[in-house]
Amino acid sequence: MKKKVAVLGSTGSIGTQTLDVVSRDPDAYEVVSLAAGTRHEQLLEQAHRFRPKLVSIGSKTLADKIRSDLPAGTKLVWGNEGLIEAAAGAGAGYVVCALMGSLGLKSTLAAIDAGATIGLANKETLVTAGHIVTRRAADRGVPLLPIDSEHSAIFQCLNGEDRGTIRRLVITASGGSFRDRARSELAGVTVEDALKHPNWSMGAKITIDSATMANKGLEVIEAHWLFDLPYDRIDVVLHPESIVHSMVEFVDTSVMAQLGNPDMRVPIQYALTYPERRPSPATPLDLLRSGTLRFKEMDFERYPCLRMAFEAGRAGGTAPTVFNAANEVAVARFLNREISFLAIEEIVESALAAHATTAEPDLEEIAFADGLAREAAAGWRK
Amino acid sequence: MKKKVAVLGSTGSIGTQTLDVVSRDPDAYEVVSLAAGTRHEQLLEQAHRFRPKLVSIGSKTLADKIRSDLPAGTKLVWGNEGLIEAAAGAGAGYVVCALMGSLGLKSTLAAIDAGATIGLANKETLVTAGHIVTRRAADRGVPLLPIDSEHSAIFQCLNGEDRGTIRRLVITASGGSFRDRARSELAGVTVEDALKHPNWSMGAKITIDSATMANKGLEVIEAHWLFDLPYDRIDVVLHPESIVHSMVEFVDTSVMAQLGNPDMRVPIQYALTYPERRPSPATPLDLLRSGTLRFKEMDFERYPCLRMAFEAGRAGGTAPTVFNAANEVAVARFLNREISFLAIEEIVESALAAHATTAEPDLEEIAFADGLAREAAAGWRK
Repeated sequence: MKKKVAVLGSTGSIGTQTLDVVSRDPDAYEVVSLAAGTRHEQLLEQAHRFRPKLVSIGSKTLADKIRSDLPAGTKLVWGNEGLIEAAAGAGAGYVVCALMGSLGLKSTLAAIDAGATIGLANKETLVTAGHIVTRRAADRGVPLLPIDSEHSAIFQCLNGEDRGTIRRLVITASGGSFRDRARSELAGVTVEDALKHPNWSMGAKITIDSATMANKGLEVIEAHWLFDLPYDRIDVVLHPESIVHSMVEFVDTSVMAQLGNPDMRVPIQYALTYPERRPSPATPLDLLRSGTLRFKEMDFERYPCLRMAFEAGRAGGTAPTVFNAANEVAVARFLNREISFLAIEEIVESALAAHATTAEPDLEEIAFADGLAREAAAGWRK
Repeated sequence: MKKKVAVLGSTGSIGTQTLDVVSRDPDAYEVVSLAAGTRHEQLLEQAHRFRPKLVSIGSKTLADKIRSDLPAGTKLVWGNEGLIEAAAGAGAGYVVCALMGSLGLKSTLAAIDAGATIGLANKETLVTAGHIVTRRAADRGVPLLPIDSEHSAIFQCLNGEDRGTIRRLVITASGGSFRDRARSELAGVTVEDALKHPNWSMGAKITIDSATMANKGLEVIEAHWLFDLPYDRIDVVLHPESIVHSMVEFVDTSVMAQLGNPDMRVPIQYALTYPERRPSPATPLDLLRSGTLRFKEMDFERYPCLRMAFEAGRAGGTAPTVFNAANEVAVARFLNREISFLAIEEIVESALAAHATTAEPDLEEIAFADGLAREAAAGWRK
């Protein structure tokens, strides 16, 4: 039987690579729905290639642009409601949640409620509502399979292991585009500089988040929820080569690590085929070519966004939501050339400082905190 | 219920470390038998410490030396028959086979026949009779749990994995005492030089085998049998830090690795507690302290013993027996200052050259090939 797959965020970096993986094994998968935000032409192309039952696009205006060109038999929906229908209304047994930012939360919850297995590439879902999402998934008996390379690595290291014997997680960080620059050299950096990630080819938002280490901070919070561990048992180390994708230390001092070339198709495929492994189009690792793997202590002064993520994670409640929302707006403003690179951190810092945390927030409280933080971040002036 | 443990080779490096692990968790283990070769005083001490039902020593002469000093209720046996009784006649459910050299084979088979789980630290058992031992263990439903750090690492990497999805094993090698010397610098090295292993503290035989890489060759053959893989899917890489104990590459290009400080108590304990992990006395790995992990291509010209091990493994039959037997005698002669370090390789080479391989040998044919190779190695003159 083919796996019926929905891909939410199908035109983004993870979405297109998911479809690449899926298209290589046509006997294994049937794409039943695709959801995109704004790239309507690409969505149209995907619709012709994969013939899903349903496609969803960000707005009615965009829907109108592609309606007449869709294949016969493909239903067209749009907006937030359309997204929910793509997640939960097309009969998908497996939903890849690869939407950017906090948009992903409601659709992920809808997919969980529909009983689908979740391939989770949207960090913000767990960051803003980890307590709700993990509980809902557990209640519904739905597996949350990580797609992010770091969490996939940890997940693979935990294969066949008793989670009660974990001593700590070690998440690796490449250091991002500016890892070879001191903090004092970051004042005047441009958007173009920031988008040059040394190891991974990814979307713009996540590449900037790698440079500020906000990305690693989101991963730490996500790991806290995915693997149910306190923050003092989650470490981050600098590993410039991005070959060791993350590690788990156990109580017997054994450390298990997952290694590979930086290619997102490997963790994407693993989430799709788990618990099996299948041949992958990625290039096998040649350790002799890399030759050396380096590990360095994380400098929280150099990367204040990571420090703030740990602080927000430990504060809990709505604090991670504020961290994420302020960062999302700040990165958008940086990409829009409104603010400097270092202002991203200042915006996050001031949003967190102004926030009074609500514990165990419900979705409405999360949305409220999210909105306030976005407003503050959008209005921030030096 | 306590695990009833027999330790064969209890006064050797692996044996004493096994007893160290066992003594740290007295509620988990009962030592029912101990077998040693010549160190009768140490065996006596162990007998008083662990109060086994039975102890076995190498000869009647040695047995006579300790008889009157043994604790009441500890039975004393000796020689080859004594060893078999220690392995299979003391009610052990778990037998640690840590005897040096080819002595271990018959006692391991006896323990398998008695239905005990095997903690296997004796490489030669699989090297000389892998086809017999693995078949017998499978027929009897007895697990063969590796104690060697490299095989334990591979075994841990295979936790929860389908063995059909292994692409290759990558066994790491420190390079031994002379790794920083060119081949031309090895002519005049002394026994003392050869015994200085850079990372591991081990017995003399295995330390010399690390320097010649014969040890790695034996591990390759052992891995072939333990993990049922052809030789062209077993690689060896130089890894001077001995932190990554070995790796497994899967069909999806993911590589799983097990890391830790060099401390044999970790793999010993893992073999004893498997599938569980328990806290260990080993020092947790500090990757930031090591900082750098290096991987270099194996040079088969520099290490002809490793090349010959692959050749003997591929030839199969009695060839690995000859490799092992000739090497064992050659190392003894080197330690006895009869021959030079480089003569070890020459002896192995000439023994293999003179040997006509018997396929699928039985125990008698193995013993015969073993004896001939030992004779030739003992009689070798430059």
